[in-house]
Amino acid sequence: MAIITLTTDFGHKDHFVGAIKGTIYKELPDAKIVDISHDVSPFNIQECAYILKNSYKNFPEGSIHIVGVDSELSPENQHIAVLVDNHYFIMANNGVIGLIISEIVPEKIVEIQLPDSVDGPFPVMEVFVKAASHIARGGTLEVIGRPFNKLKDLKDFSARITNNGDSISGSVIYIDNYGNVVTNIQKSMFNVHGNGREFELLARNKKIKAIYNKYSDIVNFELDKSQRKAPGELLALFNSSGYIEIAIYKSDLNTVGGASTLLGLDYRDTITINFF
Amino acid sequence: MAIITLTTDFGHKDHFVGAIKGTIYKELPDAKIVDISHDVSPFNIQECAYILKNSYKNFPEGSIHIVGVDSELSPENQHIAVLVDNHYFIMANNGVIGLIISEIVPEKIVEIQLPDSVDGPFPVMEVFVKAASHIARGGTLEVIGRPFNKLKDLKDFSARITNNGDSISGSVIYIDNYGNVVTNIQKSMFNVHGNGREFELLARNKKIKAIYNKYSDIVNFELDKSQRKAPGELLALFNSSGYIEIAIYKSDLNTVGGASTLLGLDYRDTITINFF
Amino acid sequence: MAIITLTTDFGHKDHFVGAIKGTIYKELPDAKIVDISHDVSPFNIQECAYILKNSYKNFPEGSIHIVGVDSELSPENQHIAVLVDNHYFIMANNGVIGLIISEIVPEKIVEIQLPDSVDGPFPVMEVFVKAASHIARGGTLEVIGRPFNKLKDLKDFSARITNNGDSISGSVIYIDNYGNVVTNIQKSMFNVHGNGREFELLARNKKIKAIYNKYSDIVNFELDKSQRKAPGELLALFNSSGYIEIAIYKSDLNTVGGASTLLGLDYRDTITINFF
Repeated sequence: MAIITLTTDFGHKDHFVGAIKGTIYKELPDAKIVDISHDVSPFNIQECAYILKNSYKNFPEGSIHIVGVDSELSPENQHIAVLVDNHYFIMANNGVIGLIISEIVPEKIVEIQLPDSVDGPFPVMEVFVKAASHIARGGTLEVIGRPFNKLKDLKDFSARITNNGDSISGSVIYIDNYGNVVTNIQKSMFNVHGNGREFELLARNKKIKAIYNKYSDIVNFELDKSQRKAPGELLALFNSSGYIEIAIYKSDLNTVGGASTLLGLDYRDTITINFF
Repeated sequence: MAIITLTTDFGHKDHFVGAIKGTIYKELPDAKIVDISHDVSPFNIQECAYILKNSYKNFPEGSIHIVGVDSELSPENQHIAVLVDNHYFIMANNGVIGLIISEIVPEKIVEIQLPDSVDGPFPVMEVFVKAASHIARGGTLEVIGRPFNKLKDLKDFSARITNNGDSISGSVIYIDNYGNVVTNIQKSMFNVHGNGREFELLARNKKIKAIYNKYSDIVNFELDKSQRKAPGELLALFNSSGYIEIAIYKSDLNTVGGASTLLGLDYRDTITINFF
Repeated sequence: MAIITLTTDFGHKDHFVGAIKGTIYKELPDAKIVDISHDVSPFNIQECAYILKNSYKNFPEGSIHIVGVDSELSPENQHIAVLVDNHYFIMANNGVIGLIISEIVPEKIVEIQLPDSVDGPFPVMEVFVKAASHIARGGTLEVIGRPFNKLKDLKDFSARITNNGDSISGSVIYIDNYGNVVTNIQKSMFNVHGNGREFELLARNKKIKAIYNKYSDIVNFELDKSQRKAPGELLALFNSSGYIEIAIYKSDLNTVGGASTLLGLDYRDTITINFF
């Protein structure tokens, strides 16, 4: 029973997602279809990669991940199928896969070439579902395409060691549903490089001197409730994806605001950590 | 294993969709439930019909499509079940079905009459799920209702040939997630009527002289990247549903805008094609 | 084949929901996962309880309901699993369960204690899915935790009888997708207490003198269409969850507005019924 996930910028209102699911069930009556996200910002490769990178590994090996973002076929945006980390990805060669797998070397990459293929504005339904169905039935990548070695290599905004090793310069890579600001500074880089030194994290005009392991670590539960830090307090933590994140405790973008709105932090803004 | 699709204006936050799914699983533990859309604008029959018309055929024959838009029973809004095109539709007689099937003659239409039926504000759960369950178990329409021949016939805004055959006068029927503007001018009408003549498409104060087969056809990939038409360019294409659509290449309503916002085009606005 | 429902404030864009579903399928390849809502306002316990209270009973007995709202473990927010009304709930001890079950006494409550448990910022995936998987495989609550008797008891805003028995004083507990305003005055209280007396319902500066059983009861279908009450009319009804609700007939928050915006009614605002 194949698992097929969908990560797209189609939104939830239009007929696109329904049409895709119907087409999958026609091909594979027993498929398990899982929506990862349909709210990727239109054509936003980085955002798509962040969302998929942080969810695909949770699925069983052999899962097939269809990516419906910037998927139209062009001489520079080939349709590809990739086997990597024991997961299958079907998408256009738009840079998403490189951002997802970073250090892992793909086991196999093919450029999709199906007989009677329709080259139109809706390749996710016309091409990707057919490719996924083939794989789900146990087929190999070689049958749906020919070997491909021109993966588009998007520049990933990696955090860098600066200031003679006394700083890390990172940037904002994602803002989540709570307005929490995710940086590209990984816990492992912070730990290895900081090596236990004192530090301050600079975000706009704010300084943060502790990085927690969960949000509520900012609360001192030994104090009486009236004396505790309240919702609305700024904090940093290592999030569940292994990145340093800047958050407002119990934030709500529709009422009190979140770290992104209250600090004025947006995608690609700089976050610095100085060690002492 | 029956497929039951849901197309509603219930949104994603409230308990309605969850309650419906739970009720379906109680009746049919093996059902496959597929959300087509829950973001139809409240009580918007035309929008509902557009979304369902462009997705239902992708599902396997025998699928059951529940429509939860304007579904309250009244003397003029009967509950009906329709078998057409080898698909089942369960809905109120509010005009949606006529807009979906247009030229196809339904094989069977019944007015739903269930024993112990609850006539309340949530008929999708109380009535439609029961009717769907009956069909899913292999029952016939005759058992859940009596023959019905008063289908509400909503005026569909069809494109018209005007100007002694030298023009097509159409209108906007849908605006999608990217702000792309879908017209009611079908590719077939354009081809048969235009018969290869030169043309210009008029949308507000813009003239468009080409209709592409996919969005990226606007890009000349033989040019150096710096000289190419960039995201933000206006274009027309035959979309995947067979309609002429006006789009902005790689649009995003939340940042650069889409055709709907940049041209100021809204539902029902006029689009004209003149042939020479 | 276990049914596992999800009610969270994670939204639809981020990777959280996808990561949870992948993790569930890894543990339970045959699980049926149902999204009840991911649009609970962040950390809003009352809203979460309203949504889950009005949907869980529709699911088959034995269903497992995971709640991902305010779920971080702390000395005062224990992770609990509750068996009540033949349904399982897995959540933090944040008050939601008390609001949901009100008069029903839970059959069993345990504080979740799993071996090798991760105490981080994403317990829904790290802890709740494991607990759910155990139950889905037929395990008992005793195996995943120890008896617990400190359920947080949130104050529920109940409607009260006032004015020597001549009034009911209630408040707004939920606003739905149409802007309909749900009060905490139950049909049963209204009927028992009003006992057939005449009444007026006061909401802001509006008086309503009838409570319908469905929305379209406001329309007199014997009148010619041109003379009927049109969409936009204010009304009250007993909604499908058994509460008195104030609505605008065929409202749309994005165009004509709903009862919440047109009357300026918000969560916790007072609604009064006077009997004569």
